[in-house]
Amino acid sequence: MDVQYVIGVDMGGTNTVIGMVDARGNILCRSQVSTTDYSTGAEYAEALGSAINDLIEQNDLKDKIKGIGMGAPNGNMNDGTIEKAANIPWAKTVNVPIAALVTKKTGLPCRLTNDANAAALGEMAYGSAKGLKDFIVITLGTGLGSGIVAGGQLIVGHDGFAGELGHSIMVRQNGRLCGCGRTGCLETYASATGVARTAREFLELYPEKKSVLREIAYPPITSKDVFEAAKAGDELALRIFEFTGKILGAAFCDFITFSSPQAIILFGGLAHAGEFLLEPIRKEMENQILNIYQGKTKILISQLNDAEAAILGASALAWE
Amino acid sequence: MDVQYVIGVDMGGTNTVIGMVDARGNILCRSQVSTTDYSTGAEYAEALGSAINDLIEQNDLKDKIKGIGMGAPNGNMNDGTIEKAANIPWAKTVNVPIAALVTKKTGLPCRLTNDANAAALGEMAYGSAKGLKDFIVITLGTGLGSGIVAGGQLIVGHDGFAGELGHSIMVRQNGRLCGCGRTGCLETYASATGVARTAREFLELYPEKKSVLREIAYPPITSKDVFEAAKAGDELALRIFEFTGKILGAAFCDFITFSSPQAIILFGGLAHAGEFLLEPIRKEMENQILNIYQGKTKILISQLNDAEAAILGASALAWE
Repeated sequence: MDVQYVIGVDMGGTNTVIGMVDARGNILCRSQVSTTDYSTGAEYAEALGSAINDLIEQNDLKDKIKGIGMGAPNGNMNDGTIEKAANIPWAKTVNVPIAALVTKKTGLPCRLTNDANAAALGEMAYGSAKGLKDFIVITLGTGLGSGIVAGGQLIVGHDGFAGELGHSIMVRQNGRLCGCGRTGCLETYASATGVARTAREFLELYPEKKSVLREIAYPPITSKDVFEAAKAGDELALRIFEFTGKILGAAFCDFITFSSPQAIILFGGLAHAGEFLLEPIRKEMENQILNIYQGKTKILISQLNDAEAAILGASALAWE
Repeated sequence: MDVQYVIGVDMGGTNTVIGMVDARGNILCRSQVSTTDYSTGAEYAEALGSAINDLIEQNDLKDKIKGIGMGAPNGNMNDGTIEKAANIPWAKTVNVPIAALVTKKTGLPCRLTNDANAAALGEMAYGSAKGLKDFIVITLGTGLGSGIVAGGQLIVGHDGFAGELGHSIMVRQNGRLCGCGRTGCLETYASATGVARTAREFLELYPEKKSVLREIAYPPITSKDVFEAAKAGDELALRIFEFTGKILGAAFCDFITFSSPQAIILFGGLAHAGEFLLEPIRKEMENQILNIYQGKTKILISQLNDAEAAILGASALAWE
């Protein structure tokens, strides 16, 4: 059989990056277009489709492309539509059938999903979840996203919007206000912004505790500051990660009662905190997990390269 | 094509009931054996297999049986084994490969799952979930069981033990002690025993409130007493259902972030409380659900006949 390739498209808030990917997960070449320089979804799709066509032509790979996979905010896998995405000017108030538009321009099948689902597919095709049929990818970025695979199948739900585990309620009384308008959501605690919030809270809560974080006045403390401080042995920073890991571990105990996965894979900026997070997660899980699941689910850090993962994840959709 | 039938086996703590079922979900005839009168799993399987063979022979249906489906406590769908079931004398301390043993005796394929998964398959084959690909069945009995279908597939997990939603932690501080040894599990609140516990708590909590429940001394209050009182308009009983429904509604909001189902179907004794439960569930969901899921998931009461549902559910496994 002929060697085949797929196109992965990572649609960010500013730029859309395009990559040509082989079956092993190597990105052979890239291209990009602006995400925002268009007034309608049709114009954007026209530009994106052109860039994809150019990339294929330049590499002389016509007839060798299996398809296009796109990761996009509010991407609905069931119908290939971007549903009202607040950060995309041409999709702010309308649903855009982006997959169909791109197929029209390129003649290639195009599938769409959101970033966290793309991450899960990327882990399954090229990463830590190779060969696994039941796992959950948790993306720890500004918020907390999730992509769930059960029985080898991505769980998308009847409307394409399954897997919003960042909005599980973890604190039912006096929980933190979430961007979704509710309180106590997991992502208000376990995310880059959640860690920064915890830092601010803990600095007030433990005024007697010395910490390098106390010296950061402006710009405001970030999760990266907390990570650097933890690496230097700062006790308050370690306590912040302990708190974050504990709440993640408690959430994982609940997630496991749902789909009993072999692994939960952490991905994204905050996942680089590694053992600072993993240790309290494991400890909480050992203490709190329902006995039938004890010791069965591995907690892993994604091994995919951050700079490539979004393209790889999206491209994995085209192999399906 | 020839008309085909399946055998559904409902293994209870005392008796095992066997039914022959047609494609429409009619139970044509039944038989039963004791669950407990045997000292080993092999002896039990021998007796069960004989009873199945007799039933087939008596009805002259040899060669017309597609297979056997069994619902059993701690039934592991992945390998057809009953894993250490506390209430089954011959499986108390060992794993019994019951499906393989029954196949050996009958020559028919046999599949096994737990009661809640069987209920989900029954709803999909013959009940309220006909045609649905994404739904959750919640069984409200002594405990709270769950069977989850996503993308048309029963979620069983890597070890066969997915779907223990009764052990989601709903109250993280001063929660009720659960049979699993932890505290705050959903089933300590939302189950027949949970409702009885709430009744005892509320009688103490609101000593000024008149209630017919106050007159029940012995035997202790049951969820059925609370249901009868609620039907008679007893305010405290109504408040107990409101409390139960509210916690179920909050749990459903979390479950929906996982698999975004079209429907959640309530099954089992407590589900007969109908609107007494449904109204507070719907109210909590309207107030608390993440906006993208608003108004999308129906909450239904199972329409399957209680006396038949366990056999039908188990039998559905044999059609798969």
